[in-house]
Amino acid sequence: MSRVTAYAAPSATEDLVPITIERRDVGASDVLIEIKYSGICHSDIHTVRGDWGQVSYPLAPGHEIAGIVTKVGSAVTRHAVGDRVGVGCMVNSCGQCANCQAGEEQYCLRGNTGTYGAIDRDGTMTQGGYSTHIVVTEDFVLRIPDALELDVAAPLLCAGITTFSPLRRWGAGPGKNVAIVGLGGLGHMAVKIACAMGATVTVLSQSLKKQEDGLRLGADHYYATSDEATFSELAGSFDLIINTVSASLDINAYLQLLGLDGTLVSVGAPAEPLPVQASSLIGARRTFAGSMIGGIRETQQMLDFCAERGIGSEIEVIAASKINEAYERVLASDVRYRFVIDASTF
Amino acid sequence: MSRVTAYAAPSATEDLVPITIERRDVGASDVLIEIKYSGICHSDIHTVRGDWGQVSYPLAPGHEIAGIVTKVGSAVTRHAVGDRVGVGCMVNSCGQCANCQAGEEQYCLRGNTGTYGAIDRDGTMTQGGYSTHIVVTEDFVLRIPDALELDVAAPLLCAGITTFSPLRRWGAGPGKNVAIVGLGGLGHMAVKIACAMGATVTVLSQSLKKQEDGLRLGADHYYATSDEATFSELAGSFDLIINTVSASLDINAYLQLLGLDGTLVSVGAPAEPLPVQASSLIGARRTFAGSMIGGIRETQQMLDFCAERGIGSEIEVIAASKINEAYERVLASDVRYRFVIDASTF
Repeated sequence: MSRVTAYAAPSATEDLVPITIERRDVGASDVLIEIKYSGICHSDIHTVRGDWGQVSYPLAPGHEIAGIVTKVGSAVTRHAVGDRVGVGCMVNSCGQCANCQAGEEQYCLRGNTGTYGAIDRDGTMTQGGYSTHIVVTEDFVLRIPDALELDVAAPLLCAGITTFSPLRRWGAGPGKNVAIVGLGGLGHMAVKIACAMGATVTVLSQSLKKQEDGLRLGADHYYATSDEATFSELAGSFDLIINTVSASLDINAYLQLLGLDGTLVSVGAPAEPLPVQASSLIGARRTFAGSMIGGIRETQQMLDFCAERGIGSEIEVIAASKINEAYERVLASDVRYRFVIDASTF
Repeated sequence: MSRVTAYAAPSATEDLVPITIERRDVGASDVLIEIKYSGICHSDIHTVRGDWGQVSYPLAPGHEIAGIVTKVGSAVTRHAVGDRVGVGCMVNSCGQCANCQAGEEQYCLRGNTGTYGAIDRDGTMTQGGYSTHIVVTEDFVLRIPDALELDVAAPLLCAGITTFSPLRRWGAGPGKNVAIVGLGGLGHMAVKIACAMGATVTVLSQSLKKQEDGLRLGADHYYATSDEATFSELAGSFDLIINTVSASLDINAYLQLLGLDGTLVSVGAPAEPLPVQASSLIGARRTFAGSMIGGIRETQQMLDFCAERGIGSEIEVIAASKINEAYERVLASDVRYRFVIDASTF
């Protein structure tokens, strides 16, 4: 066991503070990673504040981790000391169920082990990436290609794969009209990736405030959803809509933007159910789908794809002491587009 | 113009009565059909009673039509006098839009022309199949293979294609677990067709009343949805669920029955929206879809498939004078599984 520094929430209502946590000894299949950067995901905030159910404290969040391997277990074959690596939203799964066997560990039928706040095999609670080091079983450690800087790579481990996976699955590519709802941490990655895949990309954002940014990131079109005319003008025009917004929205209005056989994929889950009119689907054989991160194999494909296309996240690097301030700015949508903590400041 | 006998609703609240309607002259591309059998679809009742919006009266419903060609226009090439033919839910479409060009006339962007109660090209209102004759443009007339009796073929034109199309599109076949929700006019066709496609088929019905029937039709399993245990026992077990029930149901409970990448397709549209929890979709990359009948090409494929596999509808043939009684029995779910009117009794 080793004791390392982390930033953790002492309770649902208190600011994050530096604490010391324990990392397990490096087992035969484990990799010890010296964390270099850790992204701040909106779900970190939801989780530590108890919005998604009770959690145990102190809790160090963080599931967008980039760093360097400093030690490997005796049976490790995939990684070596000095390798540039990443860890995303999960650090384990059963490995035996049909979904794990299919490489879809995120949908492990016994539940994947979340990078923080989950009960690990040894009965301890996992602690996340707001920390100097982490020990992870090698199968859940990704290679970060040299072409990607570690700081802009960190958010790919959650925001990148969450958008890459549905874009690839539902065929974003040349000749396809893809809309991205929301231009935040997830949305800006979706725009970059969909553009790199060759799709024609439209951003649907509440206002035109970030229009210049959206077009700079590669979007072909940008519309304000606060403008009613957007919905009539774009009716029936998309093959695929990726909804990155967790707030409730008028789901039927968005479904009507899909053409024949179009799909709307939600990657965020509002607490309230979405009242879907079956006729919104039946009228053009539309589908409403959901998608959650991606499997380990696909996450590696995403990192390789991003490296090849020179895609990183748009980030603002902060010191650990600024985490609480950053949380307030995330909640106020005042970030373009991802805060990344410099782990040397923990 | 010719005057023919039909059964029509004089208003939303009156019984259907025999009347005389006009059929247009047989144009160059038209086919005159002597109707032999006409199925009674639940939507006939909804439409004539104004449940789905205002309609003009008198209105003769019927969109499950089987008969014999008795005259063809000078330019007709697909059909000849004496041919056994059928007409389904639509009798025309624009033919020019992307969806029509793709053979998906049911999703015509200008709106397909319904077999009854729609405004035809010439400005008249279409009158349906509860009638002795109908004139239809040849492109919307289907060939009924010799292997299919006309009476059991009639319901295929709506109930058959409505279920065949999503079963085929979403891959019902060997190794696939398919559930059919509801064992009525649509549901019993779905069971027969899904079984013929090679899928493992489960009926999900409110009670076990029709269990023996369901198994006789080919279903492998039969469960009552009034039994809570059904939902825990079958959780995550289906690749595809076809929901043939138009009444509202607990959509999230049904979505939880889907495994990874499973799809629930609604072919009926309840008036009330269905409150979908995005987490029900996201948790296993599930999709909720809708589907409406099928294109003309696919309807022909369905008829050919049914003829090859010896699949017809389970029917009760009635005289025209029994239509109103049949309506009451349909509303009381007292039909196994489709009423078909013998057109010689009009």
